[in-house]
This record gives sequence, C-alpha cells and structure tokens, in this order.
Amino acid sequence: MNVNGQHFRTIWHHPSNTRVVQIIDQRHLPHEFVIEDLSTVEDVIRAIKEMHVRGAGLIGATAAYGIYLATLQAAKTSSFDHFMEKAQMELLQSRPTAVNLEWAIQQQMEVIAMQNTISNKITAAQKKASEIADQDARHCQAIGEHGRQLIEEISRQKKGDSVNILTHCNAGWLAFVDYGSALAPVYAAHDRGIKVHVWVDETRPRNQGARLTAWELGQHQVPHTVIADNTGGHLMQHALVDLVIVGSDRTTRKGDVANKIGTYLKALAASDNGIPFYVALPSSSIDWSIENGIMEIPIEQREAEEVKFIQGSFDGKIIEVLLTPASSHATNFAFDVTPARLVSGLITERGICQANEKDIMRLFPEKA
Amino acid sequence: MNVNGQHFRTIWHHPSNTRVVQIIDQRHLPHEFVIEDLSTVEDVIRAIKEMHVRGAGLIGATAAYGIYLATLQAAKTSSFDHFMEKAQMELLQSRPTAVNLEWAIQQQMEVIAMQNTISNKITAAQKKASEIADQDARHCQAIGEHGRQLIEEISRQKKGDSVNILTHCNAGWLAFVDYGSALAPVYAAHDRGIKVHVWVDETRPRNQGARLTAWELGQHQVPHTVIADNTGGHLMQHALVDLVIVGSDRTTRKGDVANKIGTYLKALAASDNGIPFYVALPSSSIDWSIENGIMEIPIEQREAEEVKFIQGSFDGKIIEVLLTPASSHATNFAFDVTPARLVSGLITERGICQANEKDIMRLFPEKA
Repeated sequence: MNVNGQHFRTIWHHPSNTRVVQIIDQRHLPHEFVIEDLSTVEDVIRAIKEMHVRGAGLIGATAAYGIYLATLQAAKTSSFDHFMEKAQMELLQSRPTAVNLEWAIQQQMEVIAMQNTISNKITAAQKKASEIADQDARHCQAIGEHGRQLIEEISRQKKGDSVNILTHCNAGWLAFVDYGSALAPVYAAHDRGIKVHVWVDETRPRNQGARLTAWELGQHQVPHTVIADNTGGHLMQHALVDLVIVGSDRTTRKGDVANKIGTYLKALAASDNGIPFYVALPSSSIDWSIENGIMEIPIEQREAEEVKFIQGSFDGKIIEVLLTPASSHATNFAFDVTPARLVSGLITERGICQANEKDIMRLFPEKA
Repeated sequence: MNVNGQHFRTIWHHPSNTRVVQIIDQRHLPHEFVIEDLSTVEDVIRAIKEMHVRGAGLIGATAAYGIYLATLQAAKTSSFDHFMEKAQMELLQSRPTAVNLEWAIQQQMEVIAMQNTISNKITAAQKKASEIADQDARHCQAIGEHGRQLIEEISRQKKGDSVNILTHCNAGWLAFVDYGSALAPVYAAHDRGIKVHVWVDETRPRNQGARLTAWELGQHQVPHTVIADNTGGHLMQHALVDLVIVGSDRTTRKGDVANKIGTYLKALAASDNGIPFYVALPSSSIDWSIENGIMEIPIEQREAEEVKFIQGSFDGKIIEVLLTPASSHATNFAFDVTPARLVSGLITERGICQANEKDIMRLFPEKA
C-alpha cells in the first residue's frame, strides 16, 4: 500500500543485499516512518517480541524470513541442525497467540529438511520466505474482494450513503505483508468509489488503532474517525455503525476468534444491536487443531508498563508519559476470545463462511 | 476520605474566608495534589466545564456552592434577580449529562426565592450549599452500608477469598463530596476487614479510572489493579470478576443508566457471563421526569483533542502527548446508556432495588 504516494510492503529483502531483510519499524508510527534492517534471527526475535512488527500475517512472514536469516548464521557454525533447532524454539516463543508464527516456522522447517546440502537449505528457505510473504499478500487481496461485496450491498441499501465500518486494533496492511485482512475490504470498496467511513478504535494499551490504522487509512485517503475503545457500544445503539470488521490472531476450527483484547466487547455490542460482525482472516490464522477458543488459545500477558505508560509525540519527540499513580499495579492481557456464536461470518481468501465447523469445512474441505 | 493520612472532602468553605470555596483540582491527580480557590460563579463554571471537579454528586454540590457565590456577586449589582437568572442559566449549561447539576441549582433557586432580603438570600444559599454537600456525603455513606452487604455475601461464598470487583470511571469519593457511590461499598467492606480487590478500568479518554480511582484506592490502601478498558470481558470470561459496581450520571425512573462511555460494554459482558452488575447512586442522580434513557438522556460530546492527546507525567512535569496522526479526526462521546435489562440492581441511600419502575417506587414512594 502507499506511504506518501510510494508503494511499500511491510517486509522485503534489502534491495542490494539479500542477506538483509528490511521492515517498517512500526513502533515509531504515526509520528516517524522508520525502516529497520534485520540481519540475524536474534534481530527478528527482538523485532517480533518488542513489536517493531506485529499482526498475525506479518508475524508469520517475519518469522519465515527469520528462519532464512538463521540458515545463513547456522551455515557458519559447527552444527547447522543444532543452531536451527535452537533458533526455531526461540522464534516460536517470541509471541504466543498468533498461530501464523507456528505455521510459518513449520513450513520453513519442512522445506529445509527436504534439502540435502546447506547451500540448498539456504536457497530453499529464502525462496519459501518470499513465497509465504507473496501468499499472504495474495490472500489478503482475495479477502478484500470477498469482503467488498458485503460493503457494496450495505451501500446499495443506504442508497450510496457512506457505509460506517467499525474496526478494532490494526488488521490493515501493516498487520500483514500488504492489503490487510479487516481493512482489505475497506480499501477495495474505497478504490471502487464506494463511500466508506471507518470508526477506528484506538485500541489500548498499545493504541494500534490510533497509531497504525488511522495512519494507514490517512495515507490511503480513506475517511476515518478515531474513537476511544469505550465508544463503539454507544455508536451502535444510535445506528452509527453499519458493519464491524476485525482481524484475528488465531481462529479455531469451530469459529471462535482470538483477536486484540476488547474485540469480544464489540462483538457483544454488535449482537445486542443487530449489527453484522465479521472477522477477516487468511486461513493461515486458523488453528485446525483446536475447537474451544476460550479454553485452548494461549493469551499473551505483556508488561504492566504498557498500561501504566503511553507513548506519544511531544515537541517533535516521541516520549512515554506515566498515566497512573507510580505505585499502582496494572495487568495487561493482549488478546481475548470472541465465541463463534457472536460472529456473523468469516471472510477468508476462499470466500465468506459462517463461523461454524461445517461451513468452514465447506471452504476448506482438505481440513475436514 | 484520606489524603496522605489526613481527612479531606472534595469541596469545602475556605477555613478563614466564607466568601471563598475550595476544591481539589482533580486535573493534576494522581501526579500532584492541588487545592484551588473558587471566588465567583464564573470560577465555578470553569471548574465544572474544564473538569477541575467532575462526577455526578460533586458537580451538583459544586453548582450549589456556585449559586451561593453568585448571590455574593449579585448583591453588588443593580439587579440581584437578573444576575442570578443569568448565573443559573450559565451554570446549567456547563455540563449536560449529570442530572445532579439541575437538581442542585433548582433546590438553591427555590430556597433563594423564599427569602425577602438579599442578605437573607445569601445566608440561605450558603446554608443550602452546605446541606447539599452534607446530604451527598450522608447518602454515599448509606450506599456504602447497603452495598457492603453484597460484597460480604460474595466473600462468604468464596470462604473469605478476595472479592474481585470491577469498576469503570471514578465513582469514588472524588466524584462526590465524600465516600463515593460505586466505591463506597468497597471502602465499607475493606474497613470491616473483608478482603477485596478492585479491577480499575482506566476509562479513556480522560482516564478517570487510571488517574483518580487508582489514586484514591491507593490512598486508602485498597488492593487494586489498573486495566485497559478492553480487558473486562476477558476477565469475566475467566471468572476473575465477582461483581461489577459502577456509578451513574443520570438514571431514569425505569432504571436506564447513563454513565461514563463504555459502561454499557461492561454491562453486556457481565450479562453474557452471569456476573452481577450493580449501579450505585444517590437518588439525586435519578431523573424522575424521563423513562427511556437511550432516547431521552442528553449525551455530552467533548473536544476531539481529549481523544487525540493524553496527559501524563514526564520528568516530573505533567504534559500532553499526541497519540494519533495529527490530521486524523476524532470523536468524543462522554457517556453511554446501559438499558435497565442489563442492570442487576441499583444501590441507593435507601437500600437496594431492581432496575425497574415498580421496585424503584418501592424505595421512593413519594415519586410515584
């Protein structure tokens, strides 16, 4: 998507050095646009853990590139396999909730195992990382096309009046390699001239909505309004929301959805007000091995400091300010689980299905 | 309640000059404890509008003192009645949602109208302001005693394990003259040695939870944990909340409750998880003239800047940082309405009732 009119993905090979991967360091947005070089798997682990990159799809793609960088490092050690085993374990532990991390690492390890020479393993890992990134972008583009039709239908019902879409957190192109999941339908509709307006939940504590979603919608000239996370229920009670679309970090085979903390509250409000609540996700975010999201999906707990302090721009500098009494405790759960019963449908790269095992299997019969 | 071990109310007469009223300027909490002098009704209007004071009960008490200060000013003008009429209108418009404002001003104007001389009008207004403040404190204390019994019952069921209470915004003593509404039962239980722990919603955009509730609970040594507003649903799904208690800025005679934006979302989550959701309020917050909260309660819209910027402490100074892209719009609804069907009960100064007209009238038969 566009940054100041120029096309960017969120992750790519350094143009003059294939042994280096470049990312947008998202910690500085919306105030500064910073590109970071990653040269080792340790760089990648830090970038994932400290959220230079975040979002289900991008975590997966970054991990895939991380495995590729690890092969370059492993080739210089006495035991390639030992280094790779250790790198894989540490990468796996960098964040717990997004299933794309496991999925991408597993794909890479299988590809590497199939090659006999270290040189071939490196080449295969590099190729697979690019394929995973390309596939992520392609799947998000397909999600955009399927989801656009939902927006078009509402636009028709409203006789061309602006369609008000509420989203939580950032499931835009910054959360993937390109296009995004929840925002892909918004961009696709906007690009076709359909009038849309996005209510952007700021998404405390890390404000991915206020920082990232608002920024990328602004860069793409999509009308949007930032709101406190508390606001969505009131808007829905007063018919100011036509549609909710969110992303997902892990979805079970029965349609329970783990997404950014607070998603469940918006799903409840949508249900209470008869407003469609859709989850957009590439199938790489589905954990086919589990059924009950509330019981089975691991929920990351992050540092209390992310609640007690907040980052913002002051006098041209990015600083952190203390919000609470210094001595107060804080707790920071990063995700919650929305039960399938509250989900109107899943927008996947293969089309839209209901959030239940039978209808998910209709689109993905190979997983039955 | 206590500040560094010393007893304070939120508003009081200057100890050596009855023509001056003092308040805690709550904009500086939790980082600084600042006392402000109010000498004119204009000072009072600014203090209410710019939220030096806030909270239903305290807005009412401050307005009552404001009318008293206005009588002192009116006595120096050529038309006492004209000045008072204008002062009353401007005070009424300072904030729209809390009904206590109207209620307190109306009581004052009636008292003033009953006196024949200006000197008597001033004396009557001063007396009535003190009475309104005293009554607010007394009613909150009674709410504490009634609500404490709910907490004691849960404590018994949990065999003395800590009772986890979630609250939203600040409905503590800082929102009233003393004791508070939602927190009064917490203090009463804590003071009796019942183990309690409070989940404090930070309450964006103005963070009354993170700033004020956390501060006053800390001053009173009540165990508490600050959480992002997004977190309550997850906690309830995992049985980490035993009871929700919030305050109210305006409650209809049928039990719909206007309270800080986001309250409705917590009520939905409590209902979805079978957790009791109580609203604590003195009857001065009941608007006996209306029935349907969503249709009839005016919801204040405040400046977008309160969403785009946030105040915190940095390097010993209180500053504001920008959270969003500078060009993004924001919208700031200050309250939402929780329909009576989601409210387990109302805790009033006369006892606990269900959130319906019949049971409210059982406690307040004079309003039938």
